[in-house]
Amino acid sequence: MDNRKTRIAIVGLGNVGRGVLSELPKNEDMVLAGVVTRRPKEFTSQLPIDKIYSYENLERLEADVAILCMGSATDLPTQGPFFASRFNTADSFDTHSDIYSYDSAMKDACMQIGYDGKRHTSIICAGWDPGTFSLERVLGNALLPGSSQETFWGKGVSQGHSQAVRSIEGVLDGIQYTVPKEEALSLVRSGKTPRLTTRDKHLREVYIAIEPEADVETIVQKIKGMPKYFRDYDTVVVIESPEAIAERRKSMPHGGFVLTSGKTGNGNSALIEYNNRWGSNPESTASILLSCARACNRLSKENRHGSYTMLDFPASYLSPLSREQILKSLM
Amino acid sequence: MDNRKTRIAIVGLGNVGRGVLSELPKNEDMVLAGVVTRRPKEFTSQLPIDKIYSYENLERLEADVAILCMGSATDLPTQGPFFASRFNTADSFDTHSDIYSYDSAMKDACMQIGYDGKRHTSIICAGWDPGTFSLERVLGNALLPGSSQETFWGKGVSQGHSQAVRSIEGVLDGIQYTVPKEEALSLVRSGKTPRLTTRDKHLREVYIAIEPEADVETIVQKIKGMPKYFRDYDTVVVIESPEAIAERRKSMPHGGFVLTSGKTGNGNSALIEYNNRWGSNPESTASILLSCARACNRLSKENRHGSYTMLDFPASYLSPLSREQILKSLM
Repeated sequence: MDNRKTRIAIVGLGNVGRGVLSELPKNEDMVLAGVVTRRPKEFTSQLPIDKIYSYENLERLEADVAILCMGSATDLPTQGPFFASRFNTADSFDTHSDIYSYDSAMKDACMQIGYDGKRHTSIICAGWDPGTFSLERVLGNALLPGSSQETFWGKGVSQGHSQAVRSIEGVLDGIQYTVPKEEALSLVRSGKTPRLTTRDKHLREVYIAIEPEADVETIVQKIKGMPKYFRDYDTVVVIESPEAIAERRKSMPHGGFVLTSGKTGNGNSALIEYNNRWGSNPESTASILLSCARACNRLSKENRHGSYTMLDFPASYLSPLSREQILKSLM
Repeated sequence: MDNRKTRIAIVGLGNVGRGVLSELPKNEDMVLAGVVTRRPKEFTSQLPIDKIYSYENLERLEADVAILCMGSATDLPTQGPFFASRFNTADSFDTHSDIYSYDSAMKDACMQIGYDGKRHTSIICAGWDPGTFSLERVLGNALLPGSSQETFWGKGVSQGHSQAVRSIEGVLDGIQYTVPKEEALSLVRSGKTPRLTTRDKHLREVYIAIEPEADVETIVQKIKGMPKYFRDYDTVVVIESPEAIAERRKSMPHGGFVLTSGKTGNGNSALIEYNNRWGSNPESTASILLSCARACNRLSKENRHGSYTMLDFPASYLSPLSREQILKSLM
């Protein structure tokens, strides 16, 4: 193993963890240190045995940064601090309302002396929203004082909404796409700063396969009436075969838009638009996590410990290029 | 004067300098310290006399950051270091090929002890290109390894091309718009990573008023044949009245696009698009300069001296919001 390369550990092998595994080789300055999983036996055919770690032999894992590929609902709130007291970490924690307290917990964990005798550095919320979208919201807000901002998501699969649909009696399988409404996007782009409701901004497209004896109308009404998930939205429900749904579930596209609209001088319009279109949501998240792992390693080498977001370090830290290369080729 | 506010000096009162003057009041944490001009008498009717400074009484100007609103061709290469040895500065130096050496000269000037007994901090290339576009190019390149990038400019007024047109014999007045070609934009957005020539990417629209006795065809051919400016482009020339051109010259719209296109995993497309649309190019540049002045002041207070670009400090430094506010409201 080339010690000058950043040694990356992957914790969890769900969609994002497998994405990190696929994107890591595109980063020539990184190397796989190991994969941590609660089910090591499942992966012995796919990965070299010396790269597979469980929670029982974690202290043997030598990694510069552990990328935590776990869910934000139940795993990261406990596992994040657990790992941050042992490794430098990068994660894509995405429960927006809990970011402030998660940051605090991660900072405390980083400041403990780990079994490697060191304090650690964590980059949290390293995905696209939160993550690059947060960066763009802060940039837009700072660059255009007094501006207004709108974030749109989609078209893409929402895992939470898909699970909600699948929980309904009579539904065999289902998937939900969040779709930004073109009319709302156009209005914001026009600089008119409209007041948009939840219903104005996004459409929810639901595709389900149902049990043969189930009543279509009952199921459709149940979906459309679900509070929090669908009631405040225009929702379209389409019945398809279980095979068609299975096919849809193979790909996880997503995307979104951050629009900042304001005025300069005597009423001159100013618009900044940032948008992503991902063929694979987990792979793009993985790719962002890897560049944040690079930044994390650099911060750690500078003895800058604690919890960081993408707002808290220079953008150049994400890049494998030197400052000279950046000034000469990308400025 | 509230000493806790960042005291901003404006050096030069061309289009960008007047833009800083118009945008500054939108930043509640800033206050105008003074304006430095070579022609102080011209501005006595527009500005309080105690805010007007010339090069003769610069040592009396108390400013936290001087925003240098001067051209990159002849002024900034000498005036940038002159001011950086005396003040913290922000500028929008935009000669891409000279950024590396300008950065070096600015760093040297910052490291001298100025007549305020201090070293200084400069943020260079603080506009939209270079500036926010540089940031987006570095981000795209880092977040999607192996991706390809294209930058498009416009639709907007190019001052250099407008001047080139006006220099032609028989042309009374003229203005040039750089227009990105929709077909090329669409191709890049489709993820096809086409190889685009200069001609493929941009159209040049020229509007001129000519002398009554001038030969239209001769002038049009002269414009279209100008090396560097027009010969490598599709150029459209339109004859208008001097009044129509004067009207056009009142507004200076501009904009542009940074597109990063790549793949993740097994051929999944990934696209990041950033675009700006400015009603007023100088005012939007001014607005960006002001947020960079905020970052400059913060770096200076941390005793971080030398030359910085927007890649070299955390994005949160641009924002008037606290870290807590950012984590709670913009993440």
